[in-house]
Amino acid sequence: MNKKIRKAIHAAGMILEQGFYKIQQYDEKERLHLRSEYDLKIDLYLKHFLESEYPEDSIFSEESSEQKKSSKTRWILDPIDGTSYFIFGEPFFSISMAKEVSNKIVEAHVFNPITKEYFYTEESIDKSNLNNSEIRVSDVSKLKDSFLAFGFSAHPQKIKLYLDNWSFEMESCKKALPWIGPALSICNVARGRVEGFIDYGCSMEGQAAASFILHNAGGVSLNIDGSSFDYETKGGIFSNRKLNLLEGRSG
Amino acid sequence: MNKKIRKAIHAAGMILEQGFYKIQQYDEKERLHLRSEYDLKIDLYLKHFLESEYPEDSIFSEESSEQKKSSKTRWILDPIDGTSYFIFGEPFFSISMAKEVSNKIVEAHVFNPITKEYFYTEESIDKSNLNNSEIRVSDVSKLKDSFLAFGFSAHPQKIKLYLDNWSFEMESCKKALPWIGPALSICNVARGRVEGFIDYGCSMEGQAAASFILHNAGGVSLNIDGSSFDYETKGGIFSNRKLNLLEGRSG
Repeated sequence: MNKKIRKAIHAAGMILEQGFYKIQQYDEKERLHLRSEYDLKIDLYLKHFLESEYPEDSIFSEESSEQKKSSKTRWILDPIDGTSYFIFGEPFFSISMAKEVSNKIVEAHVFNPITKEYFYTEESIDKSNLNNSEIRVSDVSKLKDSFLAFGFSAHPQKIKLYLDNWSFEMESCKKALPWIGPALSICNVARGRVEGFIDYGCSMEGQAAASFILHNAGGVSLNIDGSSFDYETKGGIFSNRKLNLLEGRSG
Repeated sequence: MNKKIRKAIHAAGMILEQGFYKIQQYDEKERLHLRSEYDLKIDLYLKHFLESEYPEDSIFSEESSEQKKSSKTRWILDPIDGTSYFIFGEPFFSISMAKEVSNKIVEAHVFNPITKEYFYTEESIDKSNLNNSEIRVSDVSKLKDSFLAFGFSAHPQKIKLYLDNWSFEMESCKKALPWIGPALSICNVARGRVEGFIDYGCSMEGQAAASFILHNAGGVSLNIDGSSFDYETKGGIFSNRKLNLLEGRSG
């Protein structure tokens, strides 16, 4: 376990936690600026930490342009994955950070600062942990027994994309929910709470760490078109590996 | 503040909290029984408390048939509002309890056992509190500046109902999310995090307490067809009162 990183992410989580509870009312100007205010606070805090601890490494963050350095190591950071939940008052958002060496993810951190759930894995341990316990995907293999999550908000165009392509799964599974924070959604597949998460919109920052956690917990990630997973492509299909979400589809 | 009730709800919340974190994997049989297991645990705990503390009063719970007594007082209980979130691993569920005297709600409790957010109001204080602070609805009055929530899961038939009736609002507001735990959704209107919550499915147990909290925080509840609010009718439109969600609609 990379204890230095964990400590920095916990400290950033405290800032985020205070922000979440503090904001009960705010005027229009504050609302409009809420996203950038807290995303930037966490972004600055963690980038400052990475720059002083690993001055040679590159940093890629959702909130700022990439800082390219000479090292083959790059840190991929999402200061708040699930910002809308943070704003709406729903405690389902996370700080996500992945370490990449020569284009391969080797270490992953996802932290929910409200529940204090810390998901972690690294290449050398070949398993994934939630706090101090190993997690594994579920054994559910049949669609009718499965819980699924889909990455849409309440926006008609976004919903339409999912209905056009996944209505059968939504109707056939045991229960399906919409979820718009990819990092925690993928981690909930990794821990066996749900069997699959399908998202057209998630980007590298949100899925780099979580998809590695899923992999080391026994699950699998695919690109949204069913092709081999490449975490730099937008969107993805994340499952426990036993449930085949592309069964019976053409192509 | 009814301290006896608060103490009992906090104790029930500890059972629920332990269940939420403990369940990381479960076999199919446990999954199928998960709902009844924890809903029933909390139901039994709180009904036992009410029966010994208020033996004359009636109790209406989501999980059991009504216990009618001679008193004009009735307790309306929802052991877990947002059970699907509890099962899926999302910390956005609550225990909800309302006291009704002669068909009128006079006291309301909504508690999220993960965040420890305790929403409360009673007739005599004429305001609503979150933990030790008074809460008020937001001042946002324009749809384009508003945050809205809609009570659908990822099920095509349920989604269709909302799209048929609320696409304009979804597209015109600043951001809209799907939320399927009415008690906390309504409380987040009451605390000014979002301006409106529209739900076709919520029942008396989930909305009795929260709609009184919303009322005493300055908000308003309507039946889903726009008629005067009657918390015994299924569904509702819950808003900060400044945003008119029925503007421009016929009828």
